[in-house]
Amino acid sequence: MLTRRTPISVAEAKEKINAIPLKHETETIPLAAANHRVLAEDIHASYDYPHFRRAGMDGYAILASDDHDFPKEFTVLGEIQAGATWDKPLHTGEAVRIMTGAYVPDDAGKVIRIEKTRPVNGEDSKVMIVTTESKTNITEAGTDVTKGDIILNKNCELNPGGLAVLTAFGVHEVKVYKKPRIAIIATGTELLSPTDQIAPGKIFNSNGIMLKNLVEEAGGIVDFETQLPDEPAVIKQTLEEQMATHDIVITDGGVSVGDFDYIGDEARKADTLLFNKIKQRPGSVTTAFIQNNTFVMALSGNPGACFTGFYLYMEPLIRRYQHQPSRIKQVRATLAAPYNKTNGFDRYLRCTYKFSNGKFAVYPNGINRSGSLANLQTTTCLALIPHSTTPMAVGTETDAWLLPFK
Amino acid sequence: MLTRRTPISVAEAKEKINAIPLKHETETIPLAAANHRVLAEDIHASYDYPHFRRAGMDGYAILASDDHDFPKEFTVLGEIQAGATWDKPLHTGEAVRIMTGAYVPDDAGKVIRIEKTRPVNGEDSKVMIVTTESKTNITEAGTDVTKGDIILNKNCELNPGGLAVLTAFGVHEVKVYKKPRIAIIATGTELLSPTDQIAPGKIFNSNGIMLKNLVEEAGGIVDFETQLPDEPAVIKQTLEEQMATHDIVITDGGVSVGDFDYIGDEARKADTLLFNKIKQRPGSVTTAFIQNNTFVMALSGNPGACFTGFYLYMEPLIRRYQHQPSRIKQVRATLAAPYNKTNGFDRYLRCTYKFSNGKFAVYPNGINRSGSLANLQTTTCLALIPHSTTPMAVGTETDAWLLPFK
Repeated sequence: MLTRRTPISVAEAKEKINAIPLKHETETIPLAAANHRVLAEDIHASYDYPHFRRAGMDGYAILASDDHDFPKEFTVLGEIQAGATWDKPLHTGEAVRIMTGAYVPDDAGKVIRIEKTRPVNGEDSKVMIVTTESKTNITEAGTDVTKGDIILNKNCELNPGGLAVLTAFGVHEVKVYKKPRIAIIATGTELLSPTDQIAPGKIFNSNGIMLKNLVEEAGGIVDFETQLPDEPAVIKQTLEEQMATHDIVITDGGVSVGDFDYIGDEARKADTLLFNKIKQRPGSVTTAFIQNNTFVMALSGNPGACFTGFYLYMEPLIRRYQHQPSRIKQVRATLAAPYNKTNGFDRYLRCTYKFSNGKFAVYPNGINRSGSLANLQTTTCLALIPHSTTPMAVGTETDAWLLPFK
Repeated sequence: MLTRRTPISVAEAKEKINAIPLKHETETIPLAAANHRVLAEDIHASYDYPHFRRAGMDGYAILASDDHDFPKEFTVLGEIQAGATWDKPLHTGEAVRIMTGAYVPDDAGKVIRIEKTRPVNGEDSKVMIVTTESKTNITEAGTDVTKGDIILNKNCELNPGGLAVLTAFGVHEVKVYKKPRIAIIATGTELLSPTDQIAPGKIFNSNGIMLKNLVEEAGGIVDFETQLPDEPAVIKQTLEEQMATHDIVITDGGVSVGDFDYIGDEARKADTLLFNKIKQRPGSVTTAFIQNNTFVMALSGNPGACFTGFYLYMEPLIRRYQHQPSRIKQVRATLAAPYNKTNGFDRYLRCTYKFSNGKFAVYPNGINRSGSLANLQTTTCLALIPHSTTPMAVGTETDAWLLPFK
């Protein structure tokens, strides 16, 4: 049945998705598995760092009061290897051999680097300090961080450096936001299974693998993925089952205006229909609804439209589950090659970009038809071609969105 | 034993690592596991794409010769759902209802969108086409890609869009370069186990977790990770075992000038010592050697130096295994806040950056001591402070390297 739809702008569609309340549940996981997870709490230093006076160089620890009138011979009391401690007193004329990173004797005021010393008759118990140096070569306890300080803030997306910081403070588990669990449902009787032979009228489910990997890059978990024929009862049942067990369900296909608009039908019956027509190309039929507190994003089955819809609407939402901004960077850019097609709706053109002399130039990337997919690998940005009856001139400035992980 | 080392420049050290011959072995893996893997062969289209004449809209397929004098009533012969085919002839005055993505009857020259049609007395067997439209709404077979064309090139790093492209052509396995297998060995008697309590003279192995995650982000596999006390026999044996089974061994610690310079000793005895002193801060003791065709990168145990050494030398090497350039972006940037320390060696300062009006500004990020680690999470770039006896003035332009995955 042909039903009338009311198109809204991309900005309005984004706003509606941005207004969806999220649960923001947390979980505690091993630090070893926490790269790029997001802290759900501030982390405080449980001790000073360094937590002991630490030698910055290999050399000899001496009293501060002995730090004059070199060259001078010292009696070597022993050696402090990294990892060891030292509890004997140090007197004038005495030195302790010490390694980089080792515990400095409490009495010592300076570590003279080994390069500034000489052996004395090959004896381990003697050393000649030839000259002083300006630095103490001692890192005082708490130089970097004081006990109680916040070392990493809530909402920080951990990276390898952050994992090192937490490890240094004895942290081996962290409380992080849960990743959203996402189901992906492709619909269409035309979809073949991966090992089938190609046949007239049939296509492979290229959107499924694309969406799964895009979701994972954005920080979501895909633990259900299927493809369904255009059978309303099967679609309805699968959708209901997956909505009950997921934060988000992404569908692709079944949202055009025709007889097999089964996802569109579900959208119209939903608790909240957010939108089912957007003033954009490609993907004007992109649909979103909420049913039983689960968000369903119904993307077009056309590869180009599916790709664009994911970046416009899903990536920011998945990132928001992690308390993070989108990784897509909006910039001003210049159209550097012709694109002559015009449209009544704004077009998000698949492009590549070059950055030089502080400026971004965008180049339309091959065939930009909604159903085309040959350019999806090489597309590195989307550029706005505003709706118009005249083509946008080469050299015109416009908005562009640089895509992550490209 | 204190041995003399001959320092080389960072550029020379990079050149030496860049000259290491790599094996570039390949493997065939499922496409589902190939995101961000790198193709080791060109991939050709095994058929045209689209591989059949495809309807771009829901509507009615008619003969090209019937495309005039609307409004006009047509007899509807049937319906072609996406996934189906159609082999009946089409005559003048006849139409076939057709869905987006479906197989277009061979005779048909146009698909008139459903929005431009009207039902006739509620009969399924009749339709009134109200008006024509400029486009055929038919995507001809091969419009996007011709059979035999290269769809993705050798050395292309696959992304979700690329996985979609390959899937569309029925590809479900790909030949890719093997990732380098890397062992990480931390040395130091001062290293605690993760669940130990902190103790004087002791520290946690913060470099281990950092290096593992940095390697993985760069595209390497870490399948061995250990920490060893400063015992030369244990270090020597572990190093030999891991060199025999890995493409690269990364060590950290044990390369300073002191008595426990056991990794340094191995380096001096190796088949090829590439370098054991670099004119850089932090990490001047950074060492690299080749033994039995395995490359060993011996990074400083100081967290700041270890972090910097990884990005300067290891990230580009691991990417080269994948036939890919480094993901670190070199830019010109302005020092936007004071940094007053001077040094006889070039310093790679841990900074954050801002990009505005086409320019990068860099800000020294907290304590930049070699042994500091509090800033490793938040550091987003390294900036060059050239060796000098006078501090670099605020506003000076310099080289900066934007770090990936930050």
